[in-house]
Amino acid sequence: MTLLGGLDYASVLVFAAAGSLAASRAQLDIVGFAFVACLTAVGGGTIRDLLLDRSIFWMANPTIILIAVSVALVVFFTAHLLESRLKTLEWLDALALSVAVSAGTGVAILEEQPAVIVVLLGIVTGVMGGLMRDVVCNEVPLVLKQGELYASAAFAGACATLLATRSGLSPLLTLAACTALTFALRAGSIRFGWSLPTYKSRPPRL
Amino acid sequence: MTLLGGLDYASVLVFAAAGSLAASRAQLDIVGFAFVACLTAVGGGTIRDLLLDRSIFWMANPTIILIAVSVALVVFFTAHLLESRLKTLEWLDALALSVAVSAGTGVAILEEQPAVIVVLLGIVTGVMGGLMRDVVCNEVPLVLKQGELYASAAFAGACATLLATRSGLSPLLTLAACTALTFALRAGSIRFGWSLPTYKSRPPRL
Amino acid sequence: MTLLGGLDYASVLVFAAAGSLAASRAQLDIVGFAFVACLTAVGGGTIRDLLLDRSIFWMANPTIILIAVSVALVVFFTAHLLESRLKTLEWLDALALSVAVSAGTGVAILEEQPAVIVVLLGIVTGVMGGLMRDVVCNEVPLVLKQGELYASAAFAGACATLLATRSGLSPLLTLAACTALTFALRAGSIRFGWSLPTYKSRPPRL
Repeated sequence: MTLLGGLDYASVLVFAAAGSLAASRAQLDIVGFAFVACLTAVGGGTIRDLLLDRSIFWMANPTIILIAVSVALVVFFTAHLLESRLKTLEWLDALALSVAVSAGTGVAILEEQPAVIVVLLGIVTGVMGGLMRDVVCNEVPLVLKQGELYASAAFAGACATLLATRSGLSPLLTLAACTALTFALRAGSIRFGWSLPTYKSRPPRL
Repeated sequence: MTLLGGLDYASVLVFAAAGSLAASRAQLDIVGFAFVACLTAVGGGTIRDLLLDRSIFWMANPTIILIAVSVALVVFFTAHLLESRLKTLEWLDALALSVAVSAGTGVAILEEQPAVIVVLLGIVTGVMGGLMRDVVCNEVPLVLKQGELYASAAFAGACATLLATRSGLSPLLTLAACTALTFALRAGSIRFGWSLPTYKSRPPRL
Repeated sequence: MTLLGGLDYASVLVFAAAGSLAASRAQLDIVGFAFVACLTAVGGGTIRDLLLDRSIFWMANPTIILIAVSVALVVFFTAHLLESRLKTLEWLDALALSVAVSAGTGVAILEEQPAVIVVLLGIVTGVMGGLMRDVVCNEVPLVLKQGELYASAAFAGACATLLATRSGLSPLLTLAACTALTFALRAGSIRFGWSLPTYKSRPPRL
């Protein structure tokens, strides 16, 4: 298995868990859990692959779907053991975001895309799965939560990967550092309220 | 016309009617009816074809769009004759779901996809059109309604088609049986409240 | 630069501004502005290109993304100077819709699609970017606003382009006339309340 393939697996695993928790909050049955888990797990990567006109990563490798479904089954029977499903969802989503940004950026670099596209595909791979999950589950998308680093964390991670690759760092180190940076920013935002200044309307919203 | 082509037509017809009823509930004008009817009618199959990297079924055959638009026109002028548009929408959606799951599963088998992908594409073809309709019309997606068989009915139908094909049943019988099974499960859920156990939070939702 | 390429640029510019205003209403940070601006700016054209199995227009030309991001930066720092961001958003969206319908119709004619598909792709290119913006930002989609010409204006513009092309008008004149017609209808609807009769439920909604 290649490094990038491994990252796709890892992000599927964690996003599937976050998706299943969202399904638990919507009180779905077990097939609903599997559906939302798959949508969240492969959503971002699917859009990346469609845009790159590559074969979709999970069509060539159905094991990925089986992983997402297995995670959904496990969460269906164990989610009640968690103290707060909302908090757990948020942290799992942060982890999955970080891994997926690395995976997306890495694939785009491998396909020799220009820098702007590399960064954009990194962000798309990271945020789109969670965005579709939230739209389908009728929740306010995490990416839109005011005063939180989300797209911004993905942006920083994707830029860092690009720079590290250009400066000749080894792929393993690059991807590990990128994941760590994205996660650190997102975690700082959840835990300590780190944020960028948001737009404030002056005068108030019309 | 092939059997699978015929199924695509049938699902377009019924989904277009369901989409038009959703448009009537949103009080759109006649072009809005046609827009929502087309989105609902071809949405699921379009995603299936994009994932399979096949040519989109209605691009090669614009008659399909004309059918959806004609249905929208008819519904625009006749929907007020219905006793309950919501109930009718639900039943039409059930029928369209059943037909579309067969069509999606059939195409994926024809393209010689592995079993997991066949089942998944069956579900995607069945539920995505209605899901996009509900997201665009700002309604809670039917696929998320608690305590109803929806994705589950699609899952059962797709699995049955796969098994029947593997055991050598004729395509016509297979597709008819799959449609009947999906519809029976969905209908039982609407009419008699059949359902799978849903996730219940213990302790309550946080 | 070709005429159609120029239209794509123009619609990106105006849609990015409309998207940034939507981001300002959701009080996002600067990366959030850029994200929503890009989604709105390239959303419709991306779906058009995926359906036509063409290379995505902005993947081949990352300048387009840079334009959308630059617009987002400018709007982030200047939006408070506007008297009403909602009104400005509506008018920018009307302008972008008109340009994008021309661009979409023009590309579909160039690809020698049948008439039905040309009109449909014109509408899709025009309305999908704004629709995704509204779904992601949790606003009621403009395309669904009762008693307004929106999809209808796009439909009229796309039909006019098709007719003008078939009757041998020069491409420049055709596209200009199409943009003007779509904009005139949409503007008349915003300013003077022009509309088509909408569906009214008799008896009331059930």
